[in-house]
Formats: sequence, structure tokens, C-alpha cells
Amino acid sequence: MARVLTPRAEDFPRWYQDVIAKAQLADNGPVRGTMVIRPTGYAIWERMQAEMDARIKAAGSENAYFPLFIPESYLRREAEHVEGFSPELAVVTHGGGKQLAEPVVVRPTSETVIGEFMAKWVDSYRDLPLLLNQWANVVRWELRPRVFLRTSEFLWQEGHTAHATEADARAYARKILHEVYEDFMVGVLGIPVLVGRKTAGERFAGATNTYTLEGMMGDGKALQMGTSHELGQNFARAFDITYSSATGGVEHAWTTSWGTSTRMLGGLIMCHGDDNGLRVPPRLAPVQAHVMIVKDGDGGALGSVAGAASKLRDALRDAGVRVGFDDRVDTPFGRRAVDAELKGYPVRVEVGPRDLAAGNAVLVRRTDGSKTPVAVPDVVASVLAALEADQQALYDEALKLRLDRTVTVGTLADAIEASATGWASVPWSEVGPAGEKEANGQGVTVRCL
Amino acid sequence: MARVLTPRAEDFPRWYQDVIAKAQLADNGPVRGTMVIRPTGYAIWERMQAEMDARIKAAGSENAYFPLFIPESYLRREAEHVEGFSPELAVVTHGGGKQLAEPVVVRPTSETVIGEFMAKWVDSYRDLPLLLNQWANVVRWELRPRVFLRTSEFLWQEGHTAHATEADARAYARKILHEVYEDFMVGVLGIPVLVGRKTAGERFAGATNTYTLEGMMGDGKALQMGTSHELGQNFARAFDITYSSATGGVEHAWTTSWGTSTRMLGGLIMCHGDDNGLRVPPRLAPVQAHVMIVKDGDGGALGSVAGAASKLRDALRDAGVRVGFDDRVDTPFGRRAVDAELKGYPVRVEVGPRDLAAGNAVLVRRTDGSKTPVAVPDVVASVLAALEADQQALYDEALKLRLDRTVTVGTLADAIEASATGWASVPWSEVGPAGEKEANGQGVTVRCL
Ligand SMILES: [Zn+2]
Ligand SMILES: [Zn+2]
Repeated sequence: MARVLTPRAEDFPRWYQDVIAKAQLADNGPVRGTMVIRPTGYAIWERMQAEMDARIKAAGSENAYFPLFIPESYLRREAEHVEGFSPELAVVTHGGGKQLAEPVVVRPTSETVIGEFMAKWVDSYRDLPLLLNQWANVVRWELRPRVFLRTSEFLWQEGHTAHATEADARAYARKILHEVYEDFMVGVLGIPVLVGRKTAGERFAGATNTYTLEGMMGDGKALQMGTSHELGQNFARAFDITYSSATGGVEHAWTTSWGTSTRMLGGLIMCHGDDNGLRVPPRLAPVQAHVMIVKDGDGGALGSVAGAASKLRDALRDAGVRVGFDDRVDTPFGRRAVDAELKGYPVRVEVGPRDLAAGNAVLVRRTDGSKTPVAVPDVVASVLAALEADQQALYDEALKLRLDRTVTVGTLADAIEASATGWASVPWSEVGPAGEKEANGQGVTVRCL
Repeated sequence: MARVLTPRAEDFPRWYQDVIAKAQLADNGPVRGTMVIRPTGYAIWERMQAEMDARIKAAGSENAYFPLFIPESYLRREAEHVEGFSPELAVVTHGGGKQLAEPVVVRPTSETVIGEFMAKWVDSYRDLPLLLNQWANVVRWELRPRVFLRTSEFLWQEGHTAHATEADARAYARKILHEVYEDFMVGVLGIPVLVGRKTAGERFAGATNTYTLEGMMGDGKALQMGTSHELGQNFARAFDITYSSATGGVEHAWTTSWGTSTRMLGGLIMCHGDDNGLRVPPRLAPVQAHVMIVKDGDGGALGSVAGAASKLRDALRDAGVRVGFDDRVDTPFGRRAVDAELKGYPVRVEVGPRDLAAGNAVLVRRTDGSKTPVAVPDVVASVLAALEADQQALYDEALKLRLDRTVTVGTLADAIEASATGWASVPWSEVGPAGEKEANGQGVTVRCL
């Protein structure tokens, strides 16, 4: 097989770009830093959304939609916040054919506008907690864009909640962290994320506490997969989110915010991809089993290849499997097989005249590359077993990498050295804010406490 | 009951605004013309999306995502198109802290950027048809905004497809019109839309043919609920979407585009709403049956009110009903009942100690306002029957209004007169482009051929 992708060991960032292009996941948009998410990539994002959205709703949050445009003055209201964002803002100065009296900003996050409406909607303690989420696009001008990882526009969900007490806000920020994010990332994405807190220096502007989920990518580096913030009463003070308590006093609410984005697509590629392309964990995959006609023909007792393949597709679908179907026999089979590898379908069911005459289809597992002839009546059970096993196998492989590439050290110097090839676990007492600055100076970040 | 809403007969536009505010469907955003879609409104939009998305996928289109920002030069490429949009554009002049070399436009539609990428992706006739859809926000600066109906930012789906032949493009534009839009609007929204073509004067800029679906609102006026366009080879020429045919020649593709938006929420309100608020058709409703505890207490043989209500909720859920639950007994029941009316839940199941002691819950149907005691073991069956019947009843009521308010006339003058209170059906031969101009001058539009 001709080399389709740059091998990971040769140039990991180049391999990443190759996968995105060859698997047709995304393209660069015409405005620098933007992206076009192609159907193959978007179908994975839709699956991420569906799984996350169900968990967000189960955690009690409701979806809403807030405007794309935010008055510039809103961002100034929370000084710390605007400092964090102003170099990244896209500003609309003209609308409806003329210059605007007040320029408007394209939302870099909806914190401020949601804060404004929370203040309108919250009156008494009976209105709390107020638990909101939105799925939206946001814009943060990016000077060194990389598709899915750092783009000027990206898609995300942002949760914003208001609570009567600090304890309730903290419990909810942690509920989202564990029951939504960790549960999804571990159980569906198959990524053994490290879950913990950020240092004061790495926190979200205005947060009193930031929780993070960090995944180890195939090159041993960390990717922040999601964050959940306690915002104390900072936002409530800036936006006047107050409530009358049961005892009659007026109090500021305690707020949280939490987000995950299309960056998870980048994490998926870099955590599970191999030198043949993407590998999508079965529970996530939009196409779990891809039925392919190798070539048309007669399969003896089992009838025509096309007929047998259609029957297998239907039987898999009836068993609850998400099925793809490839009958493009006028395209060489080798090319189609490479494409299926690139796109990372967990299982391929290849149906051709020779195997079918022997009563078999061939089951190809993307995780380990194994090819096994399976008697046609056993295909559904074999596919279900393979999907189950390979979800676990991908997780185990990622966990093994993380454990192999994480060393426990006693000093900051050793931690910085170890971070050249992976992660280092070091007592925070050995680092501290001064040590963190020193590490940052050498391109090393403290990811997770 | 105190008057909650302005009656429709008194001031229909005011009633519409009242419903949106009192049912907590939406608020005006801080930037003029934008809107905040609140959880009650957004849950309905999510149901619209789910129903539409399933039909769009069944019609063979795949979802993708294209960037929010479009280079200004793209819009100039299709002269007719930019003319249609330029007064509505929002323009970003600053990004990343400095002035941009080329201003970018916030998409008013993605026609142009999708055209650009279709040109990259389409090579041979084997790549056709290319069937794409996206769910996104778009911006068209609006000087006279009305929530859901005309907002500067709105949410929509826009489909864009490329085909090898005019016949195939036409068939697909009509497939979407009938199998996606009409099927959804009639079968789920319960709106007896009139389906037909627009006059040349009312067509989308650049289209060779525009199909439309028009709903009659409670005031007898028409609302355009969706459109599907044949674009001929106009866009393909402007964006160089060419393909090599089976016989080796190079041809321009034939394209279509089609869209529906959050304006459908406005149509829903104005078609089915009454003087007590919204009425949501059961098949659409995020909450189909709302179980309410009237007040706590003992229900005799059937146990506690809270226990019996929870059991009913679970039994309804198990029967596949989307269920709401209201146990806020510290809020007066009357207030909660008015709120449920406003939000238009199709069926309420009210559980209180007195009825429960007699073995009953009370079934309240939003469509006709009827209140019926139902023996607890029969509640699930009664709810299912009511949901089925009231889906039909809302449709029948809307159809009756449309028929009552549509007159068939023979001349343009009669048609203009009739349009003061409803619709007029008149032979196009009596109108023509000149008659259309005359009608427009008197505030009357030719909606549908
Ligand atoms: Zn802040
Ligand atoms: Zn045009």
C-alpha cells in the first residue's frame, strides 16, 4: 500500500494535518483561522453533541440561545474578563449599510450577556439554581490557527449557572466535571483523562477555581479537553445577579461556567489515530460497521453478493448498529478500503464472491487491523462483540501510553526534563507559583493539580 | 381569571408579543434586532430541528459546517446576489486587535462560501449529486425587528446541493419541498400550508424558480414558512462548479438551496395560539403531558398525592409520552395552571387529594379547554388518545380558518379587496407582473402560484 499519511513518529503535527485532509474531516476556511467541517467530521461532532447533550440535560440544565452580538460596553463591565479577551475580539463596526453608533463584538463566550439576563430572570431564592446551557459558535481571533485545536471560530457548548450558595455552585461545577465531561470522555471517547484543578496562574479570567480534564495525545503531550469553573460572586457582582433569600435579605448569587468544544475532535484524532488514519471508538462512531461489496458476483448458495451484503446491512441495523454501506464497485476496492481505514470505521464487513461462496464475510477490525472470515449467520454477533471489545481496547491502549509516559519525580528540574517526552507528576510543594513561572519559561505548563 | 394577554381580536401584533413574553419563549437581545431564545422556546426549536433533521437525512443530505465569516469579495462575485443582501450585511472590520486588510462579512446565507467549496470538491459526475445541509446562525440587519419573524440574527438550516442535470436539481428541490418541509409542517406543526411557486418578482435573488410554503396566521395574513430554490447554473457559473461528464466534457453543475428558520416559531404561535396563550401540537411538543400536583395530601386508597403523581409521570414516560412534572406546591395552583396554559402543553394531568380519593385524576386538554375526571388506571390511554385527537383538531381548525378566509375571485380588484381579511385565489392571467406591482403598491403580495 502506498504511503498515504506522514508517519506519526516522523512528524506528528504533519501527520495530524494529513489525517484531517485525507479522511475529509475538515478544510481551512477562506478567512484565515476559520474552518469548514466536512460531513465526515461533522457526523462525529453530532454524535459528541448527542451524547453530551443527554448528560447535560440529565444533570438538570436546559438549553437556550443567546445572541452572537454583544455590545462592546458589556465586556468592559468585568475588567479582568475583558483583559483576558480583548486581543482576540472580532468587532462589527458596520451594520445595515452604515456605521454603528456603538460597535458590537462577536461573542468570544457568552458569560457577559448571559449574566445580564440572569440578573433579569432571578428574583428570589425560588428561582435558583438557574441552570443554562447553549450550543453555539464563538470567535476568538487566532494568530497561529490549527484545525480543531485553535481556530478563530469554533463550535462549543457553554454552560452558565447561578446558585444560592457557594457550596451548591461548587457541587454543580463538579457534577458537570464528573457526570457529564469525565463520564463522556472516558466512557464514549475512550480517553483516560486526568481530572483535577488548574493553578491560579492557569485559571479562566475571573474564576475562583478552574477544574480541567487533560488528555494525553499520541506524542505524549497534554490537551485540555474541557473545563468547569467556579466564578465565586465575581460575575454576580459585575452583572448584579442578586436574589432575595428565604430570610428576606438580598444576596449575590454564586455562578459557574463550563465548556467543551470542537477541540475534542482534535483530541480524538491525536489520542486514537495511528499511521493509517483515524480510529473512532465504537460508542462514538457515526458508522460503527461499514458493509463493503468487494466486487459484484455470485456467492453460490447465499445468492448474489449485492443481495447478501444488503441483508447483512439490514440485520446489523436491526441489531441497533449504526451501519455504513459501500457498493461503489466501479471504484477500485483497494482505494475504498484505504478510505475506510482513514475514516476509522471500527469494523468493516467485506462481502465478495469468493468468501461468500465459502459461506463467509470478512470482518476487519480497525483497532488491531485483524481480518477474520466469519460465517454469514454469525456476522451480527461477531460485530457486536468486536465493537464492545474495541471500545475497551482503545481505552486500554491510551491508558497504557499515559502510564508509560508519566513519571513521578521529586523535583521541578526532573519534571521539566521528563516533560520532553511525556508527563511528570511532581509535588506542588516543589513547584509553587515561582516554579510554575520557571517551567513556563521553558515551554512546560502545570496542567492539573 | 385576570386578563393575562391582550385578546387577539383587539390587537393581534400586541397579543403576539404578549404570548412571547408571558410564555417565556424569548426576550429581545441587547443589540437591537437580536433575540434571546429562552428554554421554553428553545425546547420547541430543538424538537423542530430533530424532526426536520431526520427528514433531511432521509432525503440523502449530509450535515456540515461552514464558517460564519465570509470575505467581502465573495459576495461581489455574484452581482445579483450582493444586490439582494448588501443593505442587510454586518461587517467585521477589526480582528485580533487591529484593522483587517479585507473586511469580512457575517454570513447572511452561506450560498457563496459553500459554492466555493463545492467547486473544490466536485470533480467528476461521480461526485454528484453533492447534498449538503447546515444548521447555523445567520445575520441580516433588520430595521423593523419582530421576535422570531424578523430578527437581525436568526437560526436556520440551509441546504445546498449540486447536480449533474437540471431535471435532477429540480426533482431534489421538489423532494425537499414536499418530503421534508410540507411533510413536517402538515404532519408535525399541524399547519395546512399552501405549497407552490413564487412569481419572478418575489423570487430569491439569483434563483430561476422559488418554491414556497405559506401558512395562514390567526389574523388571516400569510407567513412564508420555508422556501426551496432552483438556482439553475447561475451559482455554478459564478463559483466555477464544474464536473467532467461521463462522455468526457466539462459541464457546469445545477444547484439548489432551501431553508427554514426560527421564523417557524413565530408561525407556530400565530397559527395555533389563542387568547390564553400558545397551543403546541402534540407531535411537536417538548412536553406533551404535564403532570401537576394540585396540592399535597392523602388520596385514600391510592396513597399520597405526590406518590400517585410520580407513578403517573413514570407510567406516561414508559408509554413514550414526553412528560413534564410540577410539584411546586408552595406556588399557588392557579398561577401554575395559567403558566401551563400560556406555554401550551397539550394535556395536563392534575392530581389533587379530593379527586384522587374518588379514584381520579383530571385531564385538561389545551386545545378545547375540556376538563375530564379520569380513573387513574385509564390515564395513560386517555392521554394517548387526547394527543392523537388534538393533533388532528389543531390542524382541522387551522384548515377551516384558511378555507373560510380564502375567496376565489375573478379580478385583481376583487383580490385586493379580499386580502384585507384573508387570502384571495385569483387567476394569474388576471394579474401578471403589472398587476403584481399594482397590488404591491396597496400592500398586497402575490404569495404563491
Ligand atoms: Zn472575568
Ligand atoms: Zn444570486
